[in-house]
Amino acid sequence: MQNHLVLTASVEREEVLRYTPAGLPVLEMWLRHHSKQNEAGFERDVTCEIQAVLIGKQAPLHAGKLAGNTVALTGFLSQRSLKNPRLVLHIEHVEFVKG
Amino acid sequence: MQNHLVLTASVEREEVLRYTPAGLPVLEMWLRHHSKQNEAGFERDVTCEIQAVLIGKQAPLHAGKLAGNTVALTGFLSQRSLKNPRLVLHIEHVEFVKG
Repeated sequence: MQNHLVLTASVEREEVLRYTPAGLPVLEMWLRHHSKQNEAGFERDVTCEIQAVLIGKQAPLHAGKLAGNTVALTGFLSQRSLKNPRLVLHIEHVEFVKG
Repeated sequence: MQNHLVLTASVEREEVLRYTPAGLPVLEMWLRHHSKQNEAGFERDVTCEIQAVLIGKQAPLHAGKLAGNTVALTGFLSQRSLKNPRLVLHIEHVEFVKG
């Protein structure tokens, strides 16, 4: 079952790096995406804000360095928790986008 | 700016086909995705529900035929409206998944 998102976005806000009880590093952030997309032969303005989380050894490497930057991300979508259906992007790969 | 989602999901609910004031056909639906994904070296259960919309000439072709089926979709994410930040998948391509 495929679940793969490729997104370029600006990091609007970055939380402080935290650790799970099992000691896994977790970096949460808020992303804002804006682009023009083609749909049914028309070009439309597309905007979305989405929460994202980077879990594991990449997290400390990026902590404190993402806010205010534009990044290219890949990852999968999951609901926040069993009781909270809000969608969160679980980041698998992150790269800075110049300019 | 990239914004591309590849998702396999079951169509939980499908709205009746409608038309915009400009005459564009619109098919709205609710999707449910469930899979196992790898994150930080662990396999985790991933679930998400997302609203999706198919706009344009594909819409009448699929109207009334998607509910209850598993489909493979590609498209982009947009917030529902200026005032409603809920994420909606704008479908660019849909295929039935057998079994």
